[in-house]
Amino acid sequence: MTTVTALQLAPVVGDLAGNRERAAAAIADAFSSGASIVVVPELATSGYVFRDREEARSVSVRPDHELFAEWASLARSARDGLGVVVGGFSELGDDGAVYNSAAVVDGSGVRAVYRKVHLWDREKEVFTPGDAAPPVVETPHGRVGVMICYDLEFPEWTRLAALAGADLLAVPTNWPQTEHPGERPAEQRIAVAAALVNRMPIAFADRYGHERGVEWTEGTAIVSPAGVIVSESGPGAGRATADLDLLASRDKRLSDLAHLFEDRRPDLYGGIAQ
Amino acid sequence: MTTVTALQLAPVVGDLAGNRERAAAAIADAFSSGASIVVVPELATSGYVFRDREEARSVSVRPDHELFAEWASLARSARDGLGVVVGGFSELGDDGAVYNSAAVVDGSGVRAVYRKVHLWDREKEVFTPGDAAPPVVETPHGRVGVMICYDLEFPEWTRLAALAGADLLAVPTNWPQTEHPGERPAEQRIAVAAALVNRMPIAFADRYGHERGVEWTEGTAIVSPAGVIVSESGPGAGRATADLDLLASRDKRLSDLAHLFEDRRPDLYGGIAQ
Repeated sequence: MTTVTALQLAPVVGDLAGNRERAAAAIADAFSSGASIVVVPELATSGYVFRDREEARSVSVRPDHELFAEWASLARSARDGLGVVVGGFSELGDDGAVYNSAAVVDGSGVRAVYRKVHLWDREKEVFTPGDAAPPVVETPHGRVGVMICYDLEFPEWTRLAALAGADLLAVPTNWPQTEHPGERPAEQRIAVAAALVNRMPIAFADRYGHERGVEWTEGTAIVSPAGVIVSESGPGAGRATADLDLLASRDKRLSDLAHLFEDRRPDLYGGIAQ
Repeated sequence: MTTVTALQLAPVVGDLAGNRERAAAAIADAFSSGASIVVVPELATSGYVFRDREEARSVSVRPDHELFAEWASLARSARDGLGVVVGGFSELGDDGAVYNSAAVVDGSGVRAVYRKVHLWDREKEVFTPGDAAPPVVETPHGRVGVMICYDLEFPEWTRLAALAGADLLAVPTNWPQTEHPGERPAEQRIAVAAALVNRMPIAFADRYGHERGVEWTEGTAIVSPAGVIVSESGPGAGRATADLDLLASRDKRLSDLAHLFEDRRPDLYGGIAQ
Protein backbone atom coordinates (compact mmCIF):
# COMPACT_ATOMS: atom_id res chain seq x y z
CA MET A 1 0.00 0.00 0.00
CA THR A 2 1.12 3.52 -0.79
CA THR A 3 0.13 6.49 1.33
CA VAL A 4 -0.98 9.34 -0.91
CA THR A 5 -1.65 12.81 0.52
CA ALA A 6 -3.21 15.76 -1.26
CA LEU A 7 -2.68 19.13 0.38
CA GLN A 8 -5.23 21.94 0.50
CA LEU A 9 -3.23 25.16 0.66
CA ALA A 10 -3.90 28.88 0.27
CA PRO A 11 -1.24 30.48 -1.88
CA VAL A 12 -1.02 34.27 -1.94
CA VAL A 13 -0.96 35.76 -5.40
CA GLY A 14 2.49 37.12 -6.25
CA ASP A 15 4.19 35.98 -3.03
CA LEU A 16 6.72 33.51 -4.43
CA ALA A 17 8.87 33.38 -1.29
CA GLY A 18 5.98 33.03 1.14
CA ASN A 19 4.17 30.45 -1.01
CA ARG A 20 7.34 28.43 -1.30
CA GLU A 21 7.80 28.44 2.43
CA ARG A 22 4.17 27.48 3.19
CA ALA A 23 4.16 24.70 0.59
CA ALA A 24 7.46 23.31 1.85
CA ALA A 25 6.19 23.23 5.44
CA ALA A 26 3.03 21.37 4.40
CA ILE A 27 4.97 18.93 2.21
CA ALA A 28 7.42 18.26 5.06
CA ASP A 29 4.54 17.64 7.43
CA ALA A 30 2.89 15.22 4.99
CA PHE A 31 6.07 13.19 4.58
CA SER A 32 6.69 13.13 8.31
CA SER A 33 3.12 11.85 8.72
CA GLY A 34 3.93 8.88 6.51
CA ALA A 35 3.03 9.98 2.99
CA SER A 36 4.95 8.55 0.05
CA ILE A 37 3.32 10.69 -2.64
CA VAL A 38 2.27 14.28 -1.96
CA VAL A 39 0.10 16.33 -4.30
CA VAL A 40 0.25 20.14 -4.09
CA PRO A 41 -2.35 22.49 -5.66
CA GLU A 42 -2.16 24.15 -9.06
CA LEU A 43 -0.03 27.31 -9.14
CA ALA A 44 0.87 26.76 -5.49
CA THR A 45 4.05 28.82 -5.87
CA SER A 46 2.46 31.83 -7.51
CA GLY A 47 -1.26 32.21 -6.75
CA TYR A 48 -3.90 32.14 -9.44
CA VAL A 49 -5.91 35.29 -10.15
CA PHE A 50 -3.35 37.26 -12.13
CA ARG A 51 -4.26 40.59 -13.64
CA ASP A 52 -2.38 39.75 -16.81
CA ARG A 53 0.40 37.70 -18.34
CA GLU A 54 3.10 40.07 -17.11
CA GLU A 55 2.06 39.71 -13.50
CA ALA A 56 2.17 35.90 -13.89
CA ARG A 57 5.55 36.11 -15.57
CA SER A 58 6.95 38.03 -12.61
CA VAL A 59 6.44 35.00 -10.35
CA SER A 60 7.20 32.32 -12.94
CA VAL A 61 10.17 30.02 -12.49
CA ARG A 62 12.09 27.45 -14.47
CA PRO A 63 12.33 23.78 -13.47
CA ASP A 64 15.92 24.42 -12.34
CA HIS A 65 14.72 26.84 -9.66
CA GLU A 66 15.97 26.02 -6.20
CA LEU A 67 12.45 25.49 -4.87
CA PHE A 68 12.38 22.17 -6.72
CA ALA A 69 15.70 21.18 -5.14
CA GLU A 70 13.97 21.85 -1.83
CA TRP A 71 11.03 19.62 -2.84
CA ALA A 72 13.58 16.92 -3.80
CA SER A 73 15.21 17.23 -0.40
CA LEU A 74 11.80 16.88 1.26
CA ALA A 75 11.09 13.80 -0.91
CA ARG A 76 14.24 12.21 0.51
CA SER A 77 12.82 12.88 3.98
CA ALA A 78 9.94 10.46 3.38
CA ARG A 79 10.04 7.47 5.74
CA ASP A 80 11.33 5.19 3.01
CA GLY A 81 13.43 7.95 1.47
CA LEU A 82 11.47 7.49 -1.74
CA GLY A 83 8.98 10.36 -1.59
CA VAL A 84 7.40 11.94 -4.65
CA VAL A 85 5.94 15.46 -4.91
CA VAL A 86 3.57 16.54 -7.66
CA GLY A 87 2.92 20.25 -7.51
CA GLY A 88 1.71 23.14 -9.60
CA PHE A 89 3.77 26.20 -10.49
CA SER A 90 3.83 29.04 -12.97
CA GLU A 91 6.56 28.11 -15.42
CA LEU A 92 8.75 30.41 -17.45
CA GLY A 93 9.58 28.50 -20.60
CA ASP A 94 12.83 28.70 -22.51
CA ASP A 95 10.67 30.16 -25.27
CA GLY A 96 9.75 33.06 -22.99
CA ALA A 97 6.14 31.90 -22.69
CA VAL A 98 4.37 31.40 -19.35
CA TYR A 99 2.79 28.00 -18.68
CA ASN A 100 0.45 26.68 -16.02
CA SER A 101 2.61 23.68 -15.15
CA ALA A 102 3.07 20.83 -12.70
CA ALA A 103 6.37 19.23 -11.73
CA VAL A 104 6.94 15.66 -10.64
CA VAL A 105 9.84 15.68 -8.18
CA ASP A 106 11.51 12.80 -6.40
CA GLY A 107 14.71 12.61 -4.38
CA SER A 108 16.74 12.87 -7.55
CA GLY A 109 15.13 16.13 -8.65
CA VAL A 110 12.56 17.08 -11.29
CA ARG A 111 11.44 13.97 -13.16
CA ALA A 112 8.87 15.57 -15.46
CA VAL A 113 7.08 18.83 -16.13
CA TYR A 114 3.55 18.92 -17.53
CA ARG A 115 2.10 22.06 -19.10
CA LYS A 116 -1.68 22.37 -18.75
CA VAL A 117 -3.33 21.74 -22.09
CA HIS A 118 -6.93 22.69 -21.35
CA LEU A 119 -6.84 26.24 -20.02
CA TRP A 120 -9.88 27.40 -18.05
CA ASP A 121 -11.58 30.67 -18.94
CA ARG A 122 -9.33 33.68 -18.28
CA GLU A 123 -6.25 31.46 -18.01
CA LYS A 124 -6.27 31.76 -21.81
CA GLU A 125 -5.34 35.43 -21.42
CA VAL A 126 -2.46 34.63 -19.05
CA PHE A 127 -0.89 31.31 -20.03
CA THR A 128 0.24 29.52 -23.17
CA PRO A 129 -1.37 26.07 -23.44
CA GLY A 130 0.81 22.97 -23.41
CA ASP A 131 0.86 20.66 -26.38
CA ALA A 132 1.97 17.33 -24.93
CA ALA A 133 0.19 14.40 -23.34
CA PRO A 134 0.04 13.99 -19.57
CA PRO A 135 3.33 12.46 -18.37
CA VAL A 136 3.28 9.10 -16.64
CA VAL A 137 6.33 8.80 -14.39
CA GLU A 138 7.70 5.50 -13.12
CA THR A 139 8.33 5.67 -9.38
CA PRO A 140 9.11 2.99 -6.76
CA HIS A 141 5.43 3.17 -5.77
CA GLY A 142 3.97 2.79 -9.23
CA ARG A 143 3.42 4.99 -12.26
CA VAL A 144 2.15 8.48 -11.52
CA GLY A 145 0.19 10.36 -14.18
CA VAL A 146 -0.23 14.12 -13.97
CA MET A 147 -2.69 16.67 -15.26
CA ILE A 148 -4.07 19.96 -13.96
CA CYS A 149 -7.58 21.00 -12.88
CA TYR A 150 -9.83 21.59 -15.94
CA ASP A 151 -7.85 18.89 -17.84
CA LEU A 152 -9.68 16.40 -15.62
CA GLU A 153 -13.02 17.38 -17.17
CA PHE A 154 -11.95 16.02 -20.56
CA PRO A 155 -12.48 12.27 -20.49
CA GLU A 156 -10.13 11.95 -23.42
CA TRP A 157 -7.31 13.24 -21.23
CA THR A 158 -7.92 10.99 -18.24
CA ARG A 159 -8.29 8.04 -20.61
CA LEU A 160 -4.97 8.82 -22.30
CA ALA A 161 -3.21 8.88 -18.92
CA ALA A 162 -4.77 5.53 -18.01
CA LEU A 163 -3.90 4.01 -21.37
CA ALA A 164 -0.33 5.22 -20.87
CA GLY A 165 -0.25 3.14 -17.71
CA ALA A 166 -0.92 5.56 -14.86
CA ASP A 167 -1.48 3.68 -11.60
CA LEU A 168 -2.41 6.95 -9.89
CA LEU A 169 -3.54 10.24 -11.37
CA ALA A 170 -2.21 13.24 -9.43
CA VAL A 171 -4.12 16.44 -10.19
CA PRO A 172 -3.08 19.83 -8.83
CA THR A 173 -6.20 22.03 -9.03
CA ASN A 174 -7.65 25.44 -8.25
CA TRP A 175 -11.40 24.97 -8.58
CA PRO A 176 -13.31 28.26 -8.54
CA GLN A 177 -16.48 27.73 -6.52
CA THR A 178 -19.71 27.10 -8.38
CA GLU A 179 -23.25 26.29 -7.26
CA HIS A 180 -24.05 22.61 -6.75
CA PRO A 181 -26.97 22.47 -4.31
CA GLY A 182 -27.33 19.05 -2.72
CA GLU A 183 -24.60 17.52 -4.86
CA ARG A 184 -20.85 17.13 -4.66
CA PRO A 185 -18.95 19.68 -6.76
CA ALA A 186 -19.12 18.88 -10.47
CA GLU A 187 -15.37 18.35 -10.61
CA GLN A 188 -15.58 15.64 -7.93
CA ARG A 189 -18.44 13.93 -9.75
CA ILE A 190 -16.40 13.95 -12.93
CA ALA A 191 -13.37 12.54 -11.11
CA VAL A 192 -15.48 9.73 -9.63
CA ALA A 193 -16.45 8.52 -13.10
CA ALA A 194 -12.93 8.97 -14.47
CA ALA A 195 -11.68 6.71 -11.68
CA LEU A 196 -14.42 4.15 -12.35
CA VAL A 197 -14.11 3.86 -16.11
CA ASN A 198 -10.32 3.67 -15.92
CA ARG A 199 -10.01 1.81 -12.60
CA MET A 200 -7.43 4.35 -11.56
CA PRO A 201 -7.30 6.25 -8.27
CA ILE A 202 -7.22 10.04 -8.51
CA ALA A 203 -5.78 12.46 -5.96
CA PHE A 204 -6.62 16.12 -6.44
CA ALA A 205 -5.25 18.97 -4.37
CA ASP A 206 -7.45 22.08 -4.40
CA ARG A 207 -6.82 25.44 -2.77
CA TYR A 208 -8.82 27.31 -0.14
CA GLY A 209 -9.51 30.89 0.80
CA HIS A 210 -10.29 33.93 -1.32
CA GLU A 211 -8.24 35.67 -3.97
CA ARG A 212 -9.26 38.88 -5.74
CA GLY A 213 -12.95 38.05 -5.50
CA VAL A 214 -12.65 34.36 -6.34
CA GLU A 215 -13.66 31.70 -3.82
CA TRP A 216 -12.54 28.12 -4.13
CA THR A 217 -14.35 24.83 -3.97
CA GLU A 218 -11.99 23.46 -1.29
CA GLY A 219 -12.60 20.07 -2.83
CA THR A 220 -9.29 18.31 -2.11
CA ALA A 221 -9.98 14.58 -2.09
CA ILE A 222 -8.83 11.13 -3.09
CA VAL A 223 -11.04 8.87 -5.20
CA SER A 224 -10.54 5.11 -5.18
CA PRO A 225 -10.61 3.05 -8.39
CA ALA A 226 -14.13 2.03 -7.31
CA GLY A 227 -15.20 5.65 -7.69
CA VAL A 228 -15.50 6.30 -3.98
CA ILE A 229 -14.19 9.46 -2.33
CA VAL A 230 -12.18 7.78 0.39
CA SER A 231 -10.70 10.92 1.94
CA GLU A 232 -11.38 14.62 1.65
CA SER A 233 -10.02 17.72 3.29
CA GLY A 234 -13.23 19.61 3.90
CA PRO A 235 -13.14 23.43 4.00
CA GLY A 236 -10.07 25.45 4.90
CA ALA A 237 -6.54 24.26 5.51
CA GLY A 238 -6.26 20.51 5.47
CA ARG A 239 -5.45 17.45 3.49
CA ALA A 240 -6.81 14.19 2.16
CA THR A 241 -4.86 10.99 2.78
CA ALA A 242 -5.43 7.42 1.67
CA ASP A 243 -3.54 4.15 1.55
CA LEU A 244 -3.86 2.91 -2.01
CA ASP A 245 -2.85 -0.34 -3.67
CA LEU A 246 -1.47 1.35 -6.76
CA LEU A 247 -0.40 -1.82 -8.55
CA ALA A 248 -4.00 -3.06 -8.41
CA SER A 249 -4.77 -0.35 -10.96
CA ARG A 250 -3.13 -2.54 -13.57
CA ASP A 251 -5.92 -5.11 -13.47
CA LYS A 252 -8.67 -3.74 -15.68
CA ARG A 253 -10.80 -6.88 -15.57
CA LEU A 254 -14.43 -6.37 -14.49
CA SER A 255 -15.60 -9.98 -14.77
CA ASP A 256 -14.62 -13.20 -16.51
CA LEU A 257 -15.35 -11.80 -19.94
CA ALA A 258 -15.41 -8.04 -19.38
CA HIS A 259 -12.34 -5.84 -19.38
CA LEU A 260 -12.30 -2.05 -19.26
CA PHE A 261 -9.57 -1.67 -21.84
CA GLU A 262 -9.88 -4.79 -23.99
CA ASP A 263 -13.56 -4.02 -24.51
CA ARG A 264 -12.71 -0.63 -25.99
CA ARG A 265 -13.24 -0.25 -29.74
CA PRO A 266 -10.52 2.16 -30.84
CA ASP A 267 -11.28 1.30 -34.45
CA LEU A 268 -14.57 3.17 -33.96
CA TYR A 269 -13.21 6.11 -31.93
CA GLY A 270 -11.59 8.09 -34.74
CA GLY A 271 -14.15 10.89 -34.43
CA ILE A 272 -12.69 11.80 -31.04
CA ALA A 273 -9.48 12.99 -32.65
CA GLN A 274 -10.98 15.01 -35.49
CA MET B 1 -39.81 21.52 -22.58
CA THR B 2 -39.98 17.88 -23.58
CA THR B 3 -41.34 15.21 -21.26
CA VAL B 4 -39.02 12.21 -21.29
CA THR B 5 -40.02 8.95 -19.58
CA ALA B 6 -37.81 5.93 -18.97
CA LEU B 7 -39.67 2.71 -18.14
CA GLN B 8 -38.48 0.09 -15.67
CA LEU B 9 -39.93 -3.22 -16.91
CA ALA B 10 -39.42 -6.92 -16.18
CA PRO B 11 -39.23 -8.88 -19.41
CA VAL B 12 -39.51 -12.66 -19.21
CA VAL B 13 -36.77 -14.50 -21.03
CA GLY B 14 -38.07 -16.13 -24.19
CA ASP B 15 -41.63 -14.76 -23.94
CA LEU B 16 -41.76 -12.60 -27.05
CA ALA B 17 -45.56 -12.26 -27.09
CA GLY B 18 -45.92 -11.49 -23.40
CA ASN B 19 -43.00 -9.06 -23.38
CA ARG B 20 -44.42 -7.27 -26.38
CA GLU B 21 -47.77 -6.90 -24.66
CA ARG B 22 -46.30 -5.67 -21.37
CA ALA B 23 -44.00 -3.18 -23.08
CA ALA B 24 -46.82 -1.84 -25.27
CA ALA B 25 -49.03 -1.32 -22.23
CA ALA B 26 -46.31 0.58 -20.39
CA ILE B 27 -45.48 2.68 -23.46
CA ALA B 28 -49.15 3.51 -23.97
CA ASP B 29 -49.45 4.53 -20.35
CA ALA B 30 -46.40 6.77 -20.59
CA PHE B 31 -47.73 8.56 -23.67
CA SER B 32 -51.15 8.98 -22.11
CA SER B 33 -49.41 10.48 -19.08
CA GLY B 34 -47.88 13.15 -21.27
CA ALA B 35 -44.53 11.75 -22.37
CA SER B 36 -43.12 12.77 -25.73
CA ILE B 37 -40.09 10.45 -25.65
CA VAL B 38 -40.26 7.01 -24.03
CA VAL B 39 -37.21 4.86 -23.31
CA VAL B 40 -37.68 1.09 -22.93
CA PRO B 41 -35.06 -1.27 -21.41
CA GLU B 42 -32.44 -3.28 -23.27
CA LEU B 43 -33.75 -6.54 -24.75
CA ALA B 44 -37.24 -5.66 -23.53
CA THR B 45 -38.83 -7.93 -26.13
CA SER B 46 -36.75 -11.01 -25.41
CA GLY B 47 -35.31 -11.09 -21.90
CA TYR B 48 -31.60 -11.15 -21.23
CA VAL B 49 -30.06 -14.23 -19.63
CA PHE B 50 -29.95 -16.55 -22.64
CA ARG B 51 -28.37 -19.97 -22.38
CA ASP B 52 -26.76 -19.56 -25.78
CA ARG B 53 -26.95 -17.87 -29.13
CA GLU B 54 -29.62 -20.22 -30.43
CA GLU B 55 -31.98 -19.42 -27.61
CA ALA B 56 -31.53 -15.72 -28.30
CA ARG B 57 -32.05 -16.29 -32.01
CA SER B 58 -35.40 -17.96 -31.29
CA VAL B 59 -36.81 -14.66 -29.95
CA SER B 60 -34.95 -12.31 -32.28
CA VAL B 61 -36.87 -10.15 -34.73
CA ARG B 62 -36.18 -7.93 -37.69
CA PRO B 63 -36.92 -4.20 -37.72
CA ASP B 64 -39.90 -4.89 -40.01
CA HIS B 65 -41.58 -6.96 -37.26
CA GLU B 66 -45.10 -5.84 -36.46
CA LEU B 67 -44.19 -4.99 -32.86
CA PHE B 68 -42.45 -1.89 -34.18
CA ALA B 69 -45.56 -0.93 -36.16
CA GLU B 70 -47.34 -1.16 -32.82
CA TRP B 71 -44.75 1.12 -31.19
CA ALA B 72 -45.24 3.55 -34.11
CA SER B 73 -48.97 3.52 -33.52
CA LEU B 74 -48.40 4.22 -29.84
CA ALA B 75 -46.05 7.08 -30.78
CA ARG B 76 -48.90 8.64 -32.76
CA SER B 77 -51.03 8.42 -29.60
CA ALA B 78 -48.76 10.91 -27.79
CA ARG B 79 -50.61 14.13 -26.89
CA ASP B 80 -48.96 16.04 -29.70
CA GLY B 81 -49.01 13.03 -32.01
CA LEU B 82 -45.24 13.26 -32.22
CA GLY B 83 -44.12 10.56 -29.79
CA VAL B 84 -40.79 8.76 -30.01
CA VAL B 85 -39.95 5.32 -28.58
CA VAL B 86 -36.39 4.11 -28.02
CA GLY B 87 -36.36 0.47 -27.01
CA GLY B 88 -34.12 -2.56 -26.86
CA PHE B 89 -34.72 -5.81 -28.75
CA SER B 90 -32.85 -8.88 -29.87
CA GLU B 91 -32.31 -8.38 -33.58
CA LEU B 92 -31.98 -10.99 -36.27
CA GLY B 93 -29.75 -9.46 -38.90
CA ASP B 94 -30.04 -10.03 -42.63
CA ASP B 95 -26.63 -11.66 -42.24
CA GLY B 96 -28.13 -14.26 -39.90
CA ALA B 97 -26.29 -12.87 -36.87
CA VAL B 98 -28.02 -11.93 -33.62
CA TYR B 99 -27.49 -8.40 -32.31
CA ASN B 100 -28.30 -6.67 -29.03
CA SER B 101 -30.06 -3.71 -30.64
CA ALA B 102 -32.19 -0.66 -29.96
CA ALA B 103 -34.77 0.85 -32.31
CA VAL B 104 -35.80 4.47 -32.56
CA VAL B 105 -39.43 4.54 -33.58
CA ASP B 106 -41.72 7.48 -34.27
CA GLY B 107 -45.16 7.72 -35.82
CA SER B 108 -43.69 7.02 -39.24
CA GLY B 109 -42.06 3.74 -38.16
CA VAL B 110 -38.49 2.68 -37.40
CA ARG B 111 -36.16 5.64 -37.84
CA ALA B 112 -32.88 3.96 -36.83
CA VAL B 113 -31.51 0.74 -35.39
CA TYR B 114 -28.38 0.70 -33.24
CA ARG B 115 -26.44 -2.49 -32.58
CA LYS B 116 -24.62 -2.54 -29.24
CA VAL B 117 -20.90 -2.18 -29.81
CA HIS B 118 -19.54 -2.85 -26.31
CA LEU B 119 -20.87 -6.24 -25.29
CA TRP B 120 -20.87 -7.00 -21.57
CA ASP B 121 -19.34 -10.24 -20.31
CA ARG B 122 -21.32 -13.30 -21.51
CA GLU B 123 -23.15 -11.24 -24.12
CA LYS B 124 -20.03 -11.92 -26.17
CA GLU B 125 -21.09 -15.58 -26.35
CA VAL B 126 -24.61 -14.71 -27.48
CA PHE B 127 -24.49 -11.59 -29.66
CA THR B 128 -22.45 -10.23 -32.53
CA PRO B 129 -21.14 -6.74 -31.72
CA GLY B 130 -22.20 -3.77 -33.82
CA ASP B 131 -19.66 -1.79 -35.75
CA ALA B 132 -21.30 1.59 -36.20
CA ALA B 133 -21.43 4.79 -34.16
CA PRO B 134 -24.46 5.59 -32.00
CA PRO B 135 -27.19 7.05 -34.19
CA VAL B 136 -28.42 10.57 -33.54
CA VAL B 137 -31.96 10.92 -34.85
CA GLU B 138 -33.59 14.26 -35.63
CA THR B 139 -37.06 14.45 -34.05
CA PRO B 140 -39.51 17.33 -33.54
CA HIS B 141 -38.28 17.47 -29.93
CA GLY B 142 -34.57 17.56 -30.67
CA ARG B 143 -31.87 15.11 -31.67
CA VAL B 144 -31.96 11.78 -29.85
CA GLY B 145 -28.76 9.76 -29.51
CA VAL B 146 -28.90 6.07 -28.67
CA MET B 147 -26.61 3.53 -27.06
CA ILE B 148 -27.09 0.48 -24.86
CA CYS B 149 -26.06 -0.24 -21.26
CA TYR B 150 -22.31 -1.02 -21.05
CA ASP B 151 -21.71 1.35 -24.01
CA LEU B 152 -22.38 4.16 -21.53
CA GLU B 153 -19.26 3.21 -19.55
CA PHE B 154 -17.00 4.14 -22.44
CA PRO B 155 -16.55 7.91 -22.34
CA GLU B 156 -15.44 7.78 -25.96
CA TRP B 157 -18.90 6.58 -26.93
CA THR B 158 -20.91 9.18 -25.00
CA ARG B 159 -18.58 11.87 -26.32
CA LEU B 160 -19.09 10.73 -29.91
CA ALA B 161 -22.87 10.91 -29.48
CA ALA B 162 -22.56 14.41 -28.04
CA LEU B 163 -20.19 15.54 -30.79
CA ALA B 164 -22.68 14.19 -33.33
CA GLY B 165 -25.21 16.59 -31.85
CA ALA B 166 -27.32 14.50 -29.47
CA ASP B 167 -29.60 16.76 -27.40
CA LEU B 168 -30.66 13.74 -25.34
CA LEU B 169 -29.00 10.38 -24.88
CA ALA B 170 -31.51 7.51 -24.59
CA VAL B 171 -29.99 4.36 -23.09
CA PRO B 172 -31.88 1.07 -22.85
CA THR B 173 -30.07 -0.94 -20.15
CA ASN B 174 -30.09 -4.16 -18.16
CA TRP B 175 -27.69 -3.52 -15.32
CA PRO B 176 -26.83 -6.66 -13.37
CA GLN B 177 -26.69 -5.75 -9.69
CA THR B 178 -23.30 -5.13 -8.13
CA GLU B 179 -22.20 -4.00 -4.68
CA HIS B 180 -21.96 -0.26 -4.13
CA PRO B 181 -22.35 0.29 -0.38
CA GLY B 182 -23.25 3.87 0.46
CA GLU B 183 -22.94 5.01 -3.14
CA ARG B 184 -25.17 5.21 -6.15
CA PRO B 185 -24.66 2.35 -8.63
CA ALA B 186 -21.45 2.75 -10.63
CA GLU B 187 -23.42 3.06 -13.86
CA GLN B 188 -25.36 6.04 -12.49
CA ARG B 189 -22.17 7.70 -11.30
CA ILE B 190 -20.68 7.25 -14.76
CA ALA B 191 -23.81 8.68 -16.39
CA VAL B 192 -23.68 11.72 -14.12
CA ALA B 193 -20.21 12.62 -15.38
CA ALA B 194 -21.09 11.83 -19.00
CA ALA B 195 -23.97 14.31 -18.71
CA LEU B 196 -21.74 16.92 -17.08
CA VAL B 197 -18.79 16.81 -19.46
CA ASN B 198 -21.06 16.81 -22.51
CA ARG B 199 -23.87 18.99 -21.10
CA MET B 200 -26.32 16.43 -22.41
CA PRO B 201 -29.23 14.87 -20.49
CA ILE B 202 -29.28 11.08 -20.29
CA ALA B 203 -32.33 8.86 -19.81
CA PHE B 204 -31.66 5.20 -18.99
CA ALA B 205 -34.30 2.53 -18.68
CA ASP B 206 -33.20 -0.44 -16.56
CA ARG B 207 -35.11 -3.65 -15.83
CA TYR B 208 -36.24 -5.10 -12.51
CA GLY B 209 -36.82 -8.54 -11.05
CA HIS B 210 -34.79 -11.72 -11.26
CA GLU B 211 -33.87 -13.84 -14.25
CA ARG B 212 -32.00 -17.14 -14.04
CA GLY B 213 -30.08 -16.10 -10.95
CA VAL B 214 -29.35 -12.53 -12.05
CA GLU B 215 -30.72 -9.58 -10.10
CA TRP B 216 -30.90 -6.12 -11.58
CA THR B 217 -29.84 -2.73 -10.34
CA GLU B 218 -33.31 -1.24 -10.95
CA GLY B 219 -31.49 2.01 -11.64
CA THR B 220 -33.86 3.65 -14.16
CA ALA B 221 -33.26 7.39 -13.98
CA ILE B 222 -32.91 10.64 -15.84
CA VAL B 223 -29.80 12.80 -15.42
CA SER B 224 -29.88 16.50 -16.21
CA PRO B 225 -27.08 18.22 -18.15
CA ALA B 226 -25.93 19.54 -14.76
CA GLY B 227 -25.22 15.97 -13.71
CA VAL B 228 -28.14 15.72 -11.31
CA ILE B 229 -30.43 12.68 -11.17
CA VAL B 230 -33.72 14.54 -11.50
CA SER B 231 -35.99 11.50 -11.51
CA GLU B 232 -35.58 7.81 -10.73
CA SER B 233 -37.85 4.83 -10.60
CA GLY B 234 -36.66 3.20 -7.42
CA PRO B 235 -36.99 -0.58 -7.07
CA GLY B 236 -39.59 -2.68 -8.87
CA ALA B 237 -41.99 -1.63 -11.58
CA GLY B 238 -41.92 2.09 -12.22
CA ARG B 239 -40.58 4.86 -14.31
CA ALA B 240 -38.54 8.04 -14.26
CA THR B 241 -39.98 11.18 -15.86
CA ALA B 242 -38.54 14.63 -16.38
CA ASP B 243 -39.33 17.74 -18.36
CA LEU B 244 -36.14 18.64 -20.19
CA ASP B 245 -35.16 21.63 -22.29
CA LEU B 246 -33.46 19.57 -24.97
CA LEU B 247 -32.41 22.46 -27.17
CA ALA B 248 -30.43 23.91 -24.26
CA SER B 249 -28.04 20.99 -24.75
CA ARG B 250 -26.69 22.80 -27.80
CA ASP B 251 -25.06 25.52 -25.69
CA LYS B 252 -21.75 24.08 -24.51
CA ARG B 253 -20.49 27.33 -23.01
CA LEU B 254 -19.35 27.15 -19.36
CA SER B 255 -18.27 30.77 -18.93
CA ASP B 256 -17.21 33.73 -21.03
CA LEU B 257 -14.05 32.03 -22.19
CA ALA B 258 -14.67 28.35 -21.46
CA HIS B 259 -16.55 25.99 -23.75
CA LEU B 260 -16.85 22.24 -23.32
CA PHE B 261 -16.30 21.45 -26.96
CA GLU B 262 -14.19 24.34 -28.23
CA ASP B 263 -11.72 23.72 -25.38
CA ARG B 264 -11.15 20.15 -26.55
CA ARG B 265 -7.78 19.42 -28.16
CA PRO B 266 -8.55 16.76 -30.78
CA ASP B 267 -5.09 17.29 -32.24
CA LEU B 268 -3.75 15.66 -29.06
CA TYR B 269 -6.35 12.88 -28.75
CA GLY B 270 -5.07 10.52 -31.44
CA GLY B 271 -4.02 7.92 -28.88
CA ILE B 272 -7.70 7.27 -28.08
CA ALA B 273 -8.25 5.75 -31.51
CA GLN B 274 -5.17 3.54 -31.64
